[in-house]
Amino acid sequence: MYGLIGKMRAQPGKRDELAAILLQGTDTMPGCLSYIIANDVVDTDALWITEVWQDETSHRASLQLPEVQAAIAVGRPLIAGFESQIVTAPLGGAGLPPG
Amino acid sequence: MYGLIGKMRAQPGKRDELAAILLQGTDTMPGCLSYIIANDVVDTDALWITEVWQDETSHRASLQLPEVQAAIAVGRPLIAGFESQIVTAPLGGAGLPPG
Repeated sequence: MYGLIGKMRAQPGKRDELAAILLQGTDTMPGCLSYIIANDVVDTDALWITEVWQDETSHRASLQLPEVQAAIAVGRPLIAGFESQIVTAPLGGAGLPPG
Repeated sequence: MYGLIGKMRAQPGKRDELAAILLQGTDTMPGCLSYIIANDVVDTDALWITEVWQDETSHRASLQLPEVQAAIAVGRPLIAGFESQIVTAPLGGAGLPPG
């Protein structure tokens, strides 16, 4: 499995709007096992995105999906920057599909 | 929802053993919506634990479960330390139970 843990900074006051865009269509990405959007409870402009994919290839392919491309286009002006993008190798746990 | 993103450092060479302990019984914690253990791909002694709970109360209650207490007792000597524990408010996404 291939995992990402990323902190994204929204433009001031734009976090809710950005999160709503990121939440659209996250159920329809092939090879995506988990994709969770969360507010940072201290840093009021920051979002955390934690992702688990079958492999790096499926993650890379998702970036070419029309709905993801559309979300990137709409969301980009709301993003101030990216912080602490961590690549992981998920081992398992609760909340992943069996097998 | 209540979320945690934590980086745990194993004693040198003990990461696999620690991960195996953490993976035991993660499906049986009431109120746990997601609990994923992952290797850091760069930092060879580091694990990432990303958690989503119904609320902070269910997370706190899990620490009192006998199986969790047992895992803590077995795992503690293998842990060198904790780094960057982030508290989040998960909003949704793929890999969470519906509703």
